Amino acid sequence: MSTHAVLLAGGSGTRFWPLSRAQRPKQFLELVTDRTLLAETYARVAPLCGPPHTWVVCGRSHADAVRAALPELLPEHVLVEPAARNTAPAIGLAAVRALREDRDAVLLVLPSDHHIAHPDRFRQALQTAAGVAQHGDLVTLGIRPTRAETGYGYLRRGAERERGVFAVEAFVEKPDAATARGYLQDPRYSWNAGIFVFRADALLEALRRHLPAVHDGLARISADAASAGEIFPRLPSISIDYGVMEPESASTRRIALVAADDLGWSDVGSFAALPEVRKLDARGNALSGDALALECTDCVVLSEGGRLVTALGLDGLCVIDSGDALLVIPRDRAQDVRAVVEALKARGRGDKL
Amino acid sequence: MSTHAVLLAGGSGTRFWPLSRAQRPKQFLELVTDRTLLAETYARVAPLCGPPHTWVVCGRSHADAVRAALPELLPEHVLVEPAARNTAPAIGLAAVRALREDRDAVLLVLPSDHHIAHPDRFRQALQTAAGVAQHGDLVTLGIRPTRAETGYGYLRRGAERERGVFAVEAFVEKPDAATARGYLQDPRYSWNAGIFVFRADALLEALRRHLPAVHDGLARISADAASAGEIFPRLPSISIDYGVMEPESASTRRIALVAADDLGWSDVGSFAALPEVRKLDARGNALSGDALALECTDCVVLSEGGRLVTALGLDGLCVIDSGDALLVIPRDRAQDVRAVVEALKARGRGDKL
Repeated sequence: MSTHAVLLAGGSGTRFWPLSRAQRPKQFLELVTDRTLLAETYARVAPLCGPPHTWVVCGRSHADAVRAALPELLPEHVLVEPAARNTAPAIGLAAVRALREDRDAVLLVLPSDHHIAHPDRFRQALQTAAGVAQHGDLVTLGIRPTRAETGYGYLRRGAERERGVFAVEAFVEKPDAATARGYLQDPRYSWNAGIFVFRADALLEALRRHLPAVHDGLARISADAASAGEIFPRLPSISIDYGVMEPESASTRRIALVAADDLGWSDVGSFAALPEVRKLDARGNALSGDALALECTDCVVLSEGGRLVTALGLDGLCVIDSGDALLVIPRDRAQDVRAVVEALKARGRGDKL
Repeated sequence: MSTHAVLLAGGSGTRFWPLSRAQRPKQFLELVTDRTLLAETYARVAPLCGPPHTWVVCGRSHADAVRAALPELLPEHVLVEPAARNTAPAIGLAAVRALREDRDAVLLVLPSDHHIAHPDRFRQALQTAAGVAQHGDLVTLGIRPTRAETGYGYLRRGAERERGVFAVEAFVEKPDAATARGYLQDPRYSWNAGIFVFRADALLEALRRHLPAVHDGLARISADAASAGEIFPRLPSISIDYGVMEPESASTRRIALVAADDLGWSDVGSFAALPEVRKLDARGNALSGDALALECTDCVVLSEGGRLVTALGLDGLCVIDSGDALLVIPRDRAQDVRAVVEALKARGRGDKL
């Protein structure tokens, strides 16, 4: 089997400001270990696909950062999106390029900004998925929910095809809280973590069926690489979930779910998630750098700019120091970091964004 | 009348860390306005005593900072304590020096790290006090309490000698909370703010009576200035309150209190006090520098190192950025800044103290 890792590094979120910036989005941050999330993602699948079989798709302004984070990567395997068009065109671009090097390429498509506590189990799930995908199925990993999360899409399983491999009955939108509590109790529901496995040619075939404009554009780019800058930005901006997986699951049976349980998966969605994935002190604080937390409980205190950061008597607070900017926000409001970013934008503070 | 201002700038507290440092204690901080507390103190009494009649007593390591903060001061009026021996020797030193220039000097002795919202009323009280002191009395200003404060010493008035001028019945120790509530209701009690007015010769006479060792040491220093480095550090370390005013009030009637009400006096005791003395935004936040507070209430957010400091959704918190160090602490624990300082000391972090 010929597996290729496709790391999606085109993200540009604001939820980790002030650590994340336009030039340094989340996947380039050392949020969990002393390596970037991107480098961790690479290391996680390196035992399955070495550098010759690893691809990274990213925006133009991040290509240098990718090469710096992963110096072992082949330079031509850093695929630059001329414009951000969401995951369907991005993955299609990787499929076109991988196919040119390997007619039997099976792609392991991985977001580059997640954390997985048990990479061995993760690789096992990917290998199961690759085995299923080899025969032409589009495969997705289903993560067993550990809380009634309303921020993710869900997958509903159908019949078990083989041990741990299921038909996909439906892609389900983000639920409300009551529905999410129901999903948590119902073994048919998994989190959709955006991890997909398929043959490159099967993905392109599915693109041809469901997103012909994307397929045709990629075919033209494949024939004339120089045309990418003109063609790619005009492709429809659409995710692989909505553009391919959902319609494919509705129209064919060639879509499968591999149950990936107990991976210790986290999408590291905000500063509030860091205590779930980092080492904590005796009072549940996640600390980094030159940080001193006295009588603090359940706090996140990150000093990433080399400065001394001290806290006394805090409970459930995030104190994030990037060196040139600081944010203090309650953990239960960590999602609202974007409000700070918006306020800075409105004040013309692009120097800090 | 010949009034001289004596600004006591020997303090070296830790309650404003990380803004205050060994080399830059509170009186050198711009805590209320864009001038240091020392410069504000000077400006407050400058209409009564110009530079030729102004003295500053400070530690050796702060003499340069005093000269920088008050360039108009006569160089020989910066009196350096060879060692910190509390206020009785410090004020005695100023009395000796002022007396040599002015046989009739009346000293206005002022802590250099307080804030006074109504300097006109303050100067009026000082002038009243100087009028009383001219005849040889030792005078103290009595501040009308505005809360049941347990952190200050109190003065108990006796008979009214003339309008607004009282005998002092007793110097009273810091009370417990219940006692402080009683004092707040009782017009006889005032806060002892450490502001004193007396003739230089009367003070030296009182020192001779109650602290002969201090008096003799100062006489020797007066005769031979070069001996100060050897003699001064051996003087007893004692405050003017305990060493002179209390015994004087017990033994003579030559001690008076001038009622100083509605001065808007504050000793600016900690970060928690800043909202009482600074301009606030609509939600009661005291902000400085490049600070952005969104949905915050009753917070103190100071950016004194030029960095961007942002906060969202905080209530009653102090976020203090000095540039090379940061402190986050609840307002109601601002007194515990010293615990942070102690912890840093214990960790060998003299670089930040």
